[in-house]
Amino acid sequence: MVGPELAVAPMHRICKKAGADRVSEAAARELAKVLDEIGVKIAKEAIDYAMHAGRKTVKAEDIGIAARKVLGK
Amino acid sequence: MVGPELAVAPMHRICKKAGADRVSEAAARELAKVLDEIGVKIAKEAIDYAMHAGRKTVKAEDIGIAARKVLGK
Repeated sequence: MVGPELAVAPMHRICKKAGADRVSEAAARELAKVLDEIGVKIAKEAIDYAMHAGRKTVKAEDIGIAARKVLGK
Repeated sequence: MVGPELAVAPMHRICKKAGADRVSEAAARELAKVLDEIGVKIAKEAIDYAMHAGRKTVKAEDIGIAARKVLGK
């Protein structure tokens, strides 16, 4: 499948939660694209951590460590 | 609304796209939480950029600049 896995509606909700009044459709699509890319990057790191721990299943702790690494904190 | 705006199903799809075979439900929820937080952070920056440009509508360009800033690239 090509294109973001994320739908546009939740992007609008995220923007509302951030305090936005109005958000263009293109902005919502852009946010979906960006979050999709970050998500894949985090998931790839998480898979590495899971494999390193001898697991085939990605667990929440793998996502947590991977997210901190990808986001640089 | 509390909790992530993102559903768990797209998180599983993102993990599959990254190459994961198996992903726990907790891992998918964790990824939703992480992406929701990053999304709100990006959206808040984007609102600042839109306001600075004298607009009330957040546009794709605002999301793009905000994402680069938040992700530090």
